[in-house]
Amino acid sequence: MKPQVVIVGAGFGGLAAAQGLAGAPVTITIIDQRNHHLFQPLLYQVGTATLATSEIAWPVRHLVRNRKEVTTLLAVVNGVDTVNRKVLLDDGASVDYDTLVLATGARHAYFGHDEWEPYAPGLKTLEDATTIRRRILLSFERAEREADPARRAALLTFVIVGGGPTGVELAGAIAELAHHNLPEEFRHIDTRQARVILIEAGRRILPSFTEDLSAYAHAALVRLGVEIQLGQAVSECSGEGVIYGGQPLAAKVILWAAGVRASSAAAWADLPADNAGRAKVEPDLTAPGHPEIFVIGDTAIINAWHGKPVPGIAPAAKQQGLHVARTIRMRLHGHSAPNPFHYKHSGNLATIGKRAAVIDFGWIKVRGWLAWWIWGLAHIYFLIGVRNRLAVALSWLWIYVTGSRNSCLITQGDPRPKPPD
Amino acid sequence: MKPQVVIVGAGFGGLAAAQGLAGAPVTITIIDQRNHHLFQPLLYQVGTATLATSEIAWPVRHLVRNRKEVTTLLAVVNGVDTVNRKVLLDDGASVDYDTLVLATGARHAYFGHDEWEPYAPGLKTLEDATTIRRRILLSFERAEREADPARRAALLTFVIVGGGPTGVELAGAIAELAHHNLPEEFRHIDTRQARVILIEAGRRILPSFTEDLSAYAHAALVRLGVEIQLGQAVSECSGEGVIYGGQPLAAKVILWAAGVRASSAAAWADLPADNAGRAKVEPDLTAPGHPEIFVIGDTAIINAWHGKPVPGIAPAAKQQGLHVARTIRMRLHGHSAPNPFHYKHSGNLATIGKRAAVIDFGWIKVRGWLAWWIWGLAHIYFLIGVRNRLAVALSWLWIYVTGSRNSCLITQGDPRPKPPD
Repeated sequence: MKPQVVIVGAGFGGLAAAQGLAGAPVTITIIDQRNHHLFQPLLYQVGTATLATSEIAWPVRHLVRNRKEVTTLLAVVNGVDTVNRKVLLDDGASVDYDTLVLATGARHAYFGHDEWEPYAPGLKTLEDATTIRRRILLSFERAEREADPARRAALLTFVIVGGGPTGVELAGAIAELAHHNLPEEFRHIDTRQARVILIEAGRRILPSFTEDLSAYAHAALVRLGVEIQLGQAVSECSGEGVIYGGQPLAAKVILWAAGVRASSAAAWADLPADNAGRAKVEPDLTAPGHPEIFVIGDTAIINAWHGKPVPGIAPAAKQQGLHVARTIRMRLHGHSAPNPFHYKHSGNLATIGKRAAVIDFGWIKVRGWLAWWIWGLAHIYFLIGVRNRLAVALSWLWIYVTGSRNSCLITQGDPRPKPPD
Repeated sequence: MKPQVVIVGAGFGGLAAAQGLAGAPVTITIIDQRNHHLFQPLLYQVGTATLATSEIAWPVRHLVRNRKEVTTLLAVVNGVDTVNRKVLLDDGASVDYDTLVLATGARHAYFGHDEWEPYAPGLKTLEDATTIRRRILLSFERAEREADPARRAALLTFVIVGGGPTGVELAGAIAELAHHNLPEEFRHIDTRQARVILIEAGRRILPSFTEDLSAYAHAALVRLGVEIQLGQAVSECSGEGVIYGGQPLAAKVILWAAGVRASSAAAWADLPADNAGRAKVEPDLTAPGHPEIFVIGDTAIINAWHGKPVPGIAPAAKQQGLHVARTIRMRLHGHSAPNPFHYKHSGNLATIGKRAAVIDFGWIKVRGWLAWWIWGLAHIYFLIGVRNRLAVALSWLWIYVTGSRNSCLITQGDPRPKPPD
C-alpha cells in the first residue's frame, strides 16, 4: 500500500504540496472545511463590489479531478492523534496518515477583544467578503433614507483599522466606490461626502515596504479622499463607531485589517506555538519531535528568511508547500537527512485604487500606473484556469473603461435597511 | 409639483413601467426590499452551478442612475393607506403617491403545507438559488463520506416537485451535473448513480405546451437520466424524503417548483383577490374603485388573453408595465377613458439540459438543438447590459466547450457536511 499523505487545508500551501507530489508513489487526501480554494489576494475586490465570488474561488475537487490518487474531503478537523497517526474529524470519523501536512491558515484577530468582531468584520473568507460588501452597500442605502444629519454622517463614515496591504486596498476601493462609482446613483445623499478613515497604530502605512513607497501610497490614498490617522490605536469598536487615540468617532461600518491569529492546528497536535498561535517548526518545516508532521503557511512561524520570520503571504505558503513535497519525495527515495527551507522573497505589492500600486521587488521599486498594470497582470497570471483569467480580466477592463461596478449585490442575511441597533 | 408615481417592486413589471415613463412629466419612486432586479428565467442556472449570482442581477439604482427623476428606495412595504395615498414602510415611514403601481410578484407556495418549506426550497430569489446550489453540492459531498449504502442512496436522490418549465429545467440541469460534470471529481461515489426524479401531479410535464412538445421534452429528460413520475401528488415532504402516490421515497434534496402564491400587495390595499392571493383587477389593470392604483405581473389576475388568464411569465409582466406607463401618459394628456389591456403571447419556452429546448411560438414549434440556440440567444438578448451579456455568453460557451461548471461554490450557512437531521 502506498504511503498516505494527508493535507489539511486547501489554501496556497496545501495545494502547492499536492501539486508538488504529482506522480509520486503516494495517495493523498486533501481535507478542507470549505469546498473551494480561495484566491485571498483579490478577496478585498469581492468585499468592495468589483469582482464576483465565483471569479476568485474554485472547488478543490475540481482542481484535482484528474489526479486519481487524490481524494478530497469536505470535513471539519478538530484534532490530531499523533500517536496513532490519525486526523480526527468533528463527526467522530478519522483519517489515517503516514505524513501529515497542516496548512490551515489564519483568521483575523482582535488583540484579545473578540467582542469587537460583530462590529468590525475581517476579510478571510468568501462569506467575510460578502458580509463586508453588504455592510458597505447597506450603509449607503440607509443614508439615502436617513433624515437626521448626524446619523447620516455616521452611516457615511467608513473606518478601516490597520494600514497593511489589506487595509490600504480596502480603503482605496471604498473611496473610489464613494467618490467615483456611486455618486450618480443616489438622490438624497452625495456619496462623495462619505469619509473613509484608515487608522494605523504604527507611524506609517505599509510598514513592510520601504519608506518612500509607503509615503507614495500615503499620498495616493489622500488624493483618493482617504483620511489617514497614524500612531493611533483603536481602543473600542461598537455599533456606534470606534474610539481611537481617546477620541470617539461615529461610524456604522468598521472593517478590521489589523491582526491575524493562526488556526488551531498547533493545538490539535499539541505543538509548541507563539503568541499568535503559530506552530514553531524545525528548519525543515516539521513539528519538533514529529518528522512525519509538516506545518506550513500562516499556521507556522519560522525564521527562514535570512534569519527573519517568513511573511504571511501567498508566495511564502506556496514555496513551503513545494518544499514539503520535495522533502517527501526525497524520503521516498531513502534520503532522510533534514532538508532545511529557505524563503526567497520575490517582492511586496499593494494597490491603491484602480490606477496606482506600489511594488518593491528589492532590486527595483515601481509605483503608479505601471505598478498597477504589473500588479494586475501578475494577479491574472496567478489565478487558476483560463476561464477565471478571462472573467477577471473582463471585469477589470469593464470597470476601467466604463467606471461601472458589476457586483454591487446585497445578498445573504436580512436585505432590509434596518440598522443593527 | 409633478405627479408622483410610486412603483413597488423592481421586477420585470415594475421596471417596464418605469422605463415606459421615461421623459413623462412625473417623478418616480421605485421601492424594493432587495437592492437588485433579478432575471428570474435564468435563476435555475444559478441554483445548478452554471451561472454566478452577479451575472443575472443588477442593482436597481444603477439601472436608473441616469433618470434623475427616479428615486430608488431599498425598503420593506407593509401596507397602503388608500385614503391618504401613502405607501407604508415597516420602519414607520411612508411615501406619498398620486399613482401607485403594485408589482411585487409571487413566492412559491405549498398548497397549505408551509411546514414543507425548510425541506423543499423553491426558486424565486438569489438566496433561494444559492440555498438550492448549496444543498445539491453538499449532498454529493456528504455521499462521498457516507459508508452506509441506504443513507448514501438517499443523499444521491434528488426530487423535483412540479413539471412546469422550472421543474423541467432544474431536473435537466441536475441530471447533467450528476452524469456529465461531476463524475471525475469524486473517488468513493459514482455520481452517475444519482437519481433525479421529477414528480408531476398532472398527466404530462409542461402542461402549458402542446402535447407533442411535452412528449418531446419528456423523452429528452429521460435520455438525460431523469425519472418522471406523472399523475402522482406529493402528500409529504420531510428531512427523510417525500411521500408521493402513497409511497415513501428517501431523498435528502427536495426542490419545490409546484406552486406560487402572490405577494401581499392585494392585502395591503384591501383589494379583492383570488385563492392564490392575486388581486382581481379591472380590464385596464387598475384596482376596483381605485383608478390611481395599478396591480400588474404575478401579483394580479386578469383574463386578458382572449378571455383566458394572463400567464405568470416575464413578457406578460413587461407588457403590463408598459401598458400602465401608456395609461399614465394618456391621463397626463387629459385622456381618462379606460384603456383596456390585451395580452399578446409570443411563445412558451423551456430548456432541457444544455443541448435541447422546446419552443412554441404558436405559428411554429421548434425543438432540439435549434430551439436551444434560439432560447440561449433570446435570453442573452433580454439580459440587461453588454457586460452581463458578455459574461453569460462566456459562461455558457465555456461549459458548452469544456463541460466544466464554473460556479460550484458552497457558500452561506454552515459549510460543513453535516446532515440536517
